[in-house]
Amino acid sequence: MPSIPTEPKLRLRLYFSPDEMIGPGKAELLERISRTGSIAAAGREMGMSYKRAWQLVETMNAMFRDPVVVSTRGGPRGGGAQVTDMGLKVLSEYRALESKARSAGAEHVGQLASLLNDPKSDT
Amino acid sequence: MPSIPTEPKLRLRLYFSPDEMIGPGKAELLERISRTGSIAAAGREMGMSYKRAWQLVETMNAMFRDPVVVSTRGGPRGGGAQVTDMGLKVLSEYRALESKARSAGAEHVGQLASLLNDPKSDT
Repeated sequence: MPSIPTEPKLRLRLYFSPDEMIGPGKAELLERISRTGSIAAAGREMGMSYKRAWQLVETMNAMFRDPVVVSTRGGPRGGGAQVTDMGLKVLSEYRALESKARSAGAEHVGQLASLLNDPKSDT
Repeated sequence: MPSIPTEPKLRLRLYFSPDEMIGPGKAELLERISRTGSIAAAGREMGMSYKRAWQLVETMNAMFRDPVVVSTRGGPRGGGAQVTDMGLKVLSEYRALESKARSAGAEHVGQLASLLNDPKSDT
């Protein structure tokens, strides 16, 4: 039963302590908040409850030296949110980490893919 | 409230498809089966139920071209298990992937650690 070959996906989670982690979900949330200007909209795009999206933002805000997201309540559009310079720095370092890790590991990803029962393309 | 500095831990999960993944848990289970010669003992060491350990082994056995673990039922000690050449190859490629990814990403891990509210040592 051949399936459509998909590229293997390497997902990275960086734990600073058991309670302090940055991974694909938080990075994607930051990106979507940056684009939409809204925590609620960003969470919705990811199929996440408003509460959960807020919790992730609060966790990140407590984790780093400065907040990664600031929210502006009231105002004509209400509930806007902005990714700070700290948030953009965190995001860019995480994406660079992913990129370096994927390049460096590509050979072994290919090796593992070649061992699958239903081999996946590496390209 | 200073805490004991711990080294950031980078954990990798490689998804070949939504249902086919190798990550730290499966790798550790393979290592422990290899050492203990028992799926039950390996799972127990990881605080995992017997059923869960078996499920992970079955998932891996179905995922790769050849089984990664074979079990020998009956016999004087009963329920022994052995990691196959395929299993050892999978484990070694996964560990090599981790190692390459960690080295290549070290600079960005250090950068992210330096942004923490309660900076963690990188060494």
